[in-house]
Amino acid sequence: MKKYKILLVGLGSIGKNLAKSLTDKGYNINIWDKDQKKTFALCKDLRIDYKKNILKSIKKKNTIIILAIPAGLAVDSFIQNNTKYFKNKSYIVDIGNSHPKDTISRFNYLKKNKIKYISCGFSGGAHGARTNASLMVSCDVREFNFLKKLFLDIIGKNNKKFLKRIGENPNSGNYTKIVHNGIEYGIMQAIADYYLIMKEVLKLNNDEIIKEFTKLQKMIGNSFLIRITKNIIKESKFKKSLISNILDIVDDNNTGGWAVSLAADCKFPIPAISSSVEARFISRQKRIFKNFKIKNKDKIELHEIKNKMLDVLNLAIIASYLQGIGLLQEIINKKKIKINLKYVLLSWMNNSIIRSDLLKKYYSQIKNNKININSIFKKDFSTTKNKDLLDVLVFLTKNNLALTSISSLFTWTNLLVKKKNISFSLIQKQRNYFGGHKLRFHKG
Amino acid sequence: MKKYKILLVGLGSIGKNLAKSLTDKGYNINIWDKDQKKTFALCKDLRIDYKKNILKSIKKKNTIIILAIPAGLAVDSFIQNNTKYFKNKSYIVDIGNSHPKDTISRFNYLKKNKIKYISCGFSGGAHGARTNASLMVSCDVREFNFLKKLFLDIIGKNNKKFLKRIGENPNSGNYTKIVHNGIEYGIMQAIADYYLIMKEVLKLNNDEIIKEFTKLQKMIGNSFLIRITKNIIKESKFKKSLISNILDIVDDNNTGGWAVSLAADCKFPIPAISSSVEARFISRQKRIFKNFKIKNKDKIELHEIKNKMLDVLNLAIIASYLQGIGLLQEIINKKKIKINLKYVLLSWMNNSIIRSDLLKKYYSQIKNNKININSIFKKDFSTTKNKDLLDVLVFLTKNNLALTSISSLFTWTNLLVKKKNISFSLIQKQRNYFGGHKLRFHKG
Repeated sequence: MKKYKILLVGLGSIGKNLAKSLTDKGYNINIWDKDQKKTFALCKDLRIDYKKNILKSIKKKNTIIILAIPAGLAVDSFIQNNTKYFKNKSYIVDIGNSHPKDTISRFNYLKKNKIKYISCGFSGGAHGARTNASLMVSCDVREFNFLKKLFLDIIGKNNKKFLKRIGENPNSGNYTKIVHNGIEYGIMQAIADYYLIMKEVLKLNNDEIIKEFTKLQKMIGNSFLIRITKNIIKESKFKKSLISNILDIVDDNNTGGWAVSLAADCKFPIPAISSSVEARFISRQKRIFKNFKIKNKDKIELHEIKNKMLDVLNLAIIASYLQGIGLLQEIINKKKIKINLKYVLLSWMNNSIIRSDLLKKYYSQIKNNKININSIFKKDFSTTKNKDLLDVLVFLTKNNLALTSISSLFTWTNLLVKKKNISFSLIQKQRNYFGGHKLRFHKG
Repeated sequence: MKKYKILLVGLGSIGKNLAKSLTDKGYNINIWDKDQKKTFALCKDLRIDYKKNILKSIKKKNTIIILAIPAGLAVDSFIQNNTKYFKNKSYIVDIGNSHPKDTISRFNYLKKNKIKYISCGFSGGAHGARTNASLMVSCDVREFNFLKKLFLDIIGKNNKKFLKRIGENPNSGNYTKIVHNGIEYGIMQAIADYYLIMKEVLKLNNDEIIKEFTKLQKMIGNSFLIRITKNIIKESKFKKSLISNILDIVDDNNTGGWAVSLAADCKFPIPAISSSVEARFISRQKRIFKNFKIKNKDKIELHEIKNKMLDVLNLAIIASYLQGIGLLQEIINKKKIKINLKYVLLSWMNNSIIRSDLLKKYYSQIKNNKININSIFKKDFSTTKNKDLLDVLVFLTKNNLALTSISSLFTWTNLLVKKKNISFSLIQKQRNYFGGHKLRFHKG
């Protein structure tokens, strides 16, 4: 590994684990965190020589700085403060969630200083960092070839086929990661909604819930998020880790909101994703209403509803994937960003948080960098499935439960029905009435 | 009116009507449009001397250029091409839907050229432009005083109390207009949804529908959008203006998407608004599903459901207002934009598209530039209303109808209930599991 001189910056859950992983894989790396104690402790642990001023001392060419620090201001201030040390032919590989605009300005600034800035989508969480992770890399061919060995070791030596340059622009990886995270929000919400129903409406115990998730897991196939949910429920036997002990408000990182903004910008609907992001915002607002409890008085076969729910939640997860991939297609078209869809799905298939067998299916459907998400969804959404959706919704409504993933699925599919939607005709006419916007009529 | 030398640029539906209105009100204005024929025709109509090169010929100090051209590129290129003619102490009053960022860069660029740029929210549509409109003005006190007479004539001489500087930043008016339009999208969707139900589910005829809208109008009080909807239905007797002849896809201007992005940026939920914007995006997608028709088999009293629907749609409209006002509060807080909420509501009360008596009610509730939107909504949303919402939703679902405004209302209110929401607890745990995000527990 003498080829590379690596400095890993930032020893949070990702950085620390990546440091351990790279050391395991034979790299002789240096590490640094603004928390000196943290740096010292990990140096000791990994038998790295601790140097207080490691940032200043690295002046060699071809040093690779891996940035595992919070995206945004922290990255900018790191660059501002340390460019002087890394000038000329160094590489900065930033694995944080950077905003596409930030990446462009950093890229240009660093280029002037002959430093190559590679902002790289990273997925797989702490565990992925410790073992093998998913990388969404977009950079120059020469840089890619120079860094290939390192990238390969991060994603796992046996996963060579998953390592491709996913795009051409310095920020193609950012766009891809934003969409990845949007899909992640949608899947998590669907899983959480399913858990809520099983726990509170069907009153299943943990073992029964795990069984249901096993069924869902079979439908989706090797979903990482379903797997960890099962683990969480298994571990939730001990009082401290009881899920009900955990506060019912959810934070988010900025990528969810960015996915929503990108979709608004591209005028592309992603209701499964946007409603999940918005649900997190609502979860942090002050709760105001009393619990309007209404008992379900119909004697509906719970068993039947259970199976239907499984179908519906399966569709909600599929919707998250397809709306996300659809958004990425729109970004490619409308923003003229070069992204290779096949390579994106390959990168997600390898150890990303949203990995599942569905990605393989979608991968095989891509032709000419396009995939017809509508026709794929159409196959999954039959008349029977729609009937199931209605039954589940009626059941839930009677139980006074609104579930983000199911509601958004219902609205979305309902608006995509081949039938004159007279409400939209009226809105056109309203716009024409007050704003003089031109009317368009049905043909014939 | 000798005080002002006015040049009105852009003779679309707003510009043309504003030209007529100002002429009626005694102004001796000049007009210009890139379409020479249009300019010539209106000059003749309004007895204005037609000058082909009017832009070049106006070099006097204190010329006021009113821009009524499409926001964005058109404004930038107008400024680029003509700054040389208007240099030194001219005023540009831009009544288009500018983006806050654009306003700041134009403001700075024009300041260097000693031209005052005032980007001013404008509402009221073509009719408002022809008679009296709503203005959301933010500028320097001296500029405001200089332009006051003109502004007053635009909003209507008798509406003096509605003319206030709504903010301090050059783009305060933009933010206010974006939120205004977001509310507009929400109200329009709720009205259109109500129309759809009455037409297609309750099978009411036009006279009956008008009666129902009259009831809704009484609940909201003097809503402009309900009034024009009634007019549209009244006029919809003739074959050409039949609503069902109009295409069921809806365009949008960018402000809707900007409202969604702003909300995502401020991490503030506006489901009534965001779902309406997204519905328009979906309306333009290819319809893929066959019409899954399911007949309602329950013998529910239609009359009862009709009244309940009225209540629910009333709440959906209220939600649009309150979520919008809430978003404006968040923008003030998070973006440090100075906006006076009282003055904003005053400006909207006067001839804006979203005007209704509800605004008066909210106006009276503002204290220290704040309004507790949750507590206001709580008063409107009782246990009975929640029961109505559930009944309506069950009825609609059985009829296989998903209505954007009602679905988003259900999800929103359901998440704001004081009850442990275990789905959010699970999501917290998932985030902790894969990303090491810190867990927070319930107290005690």
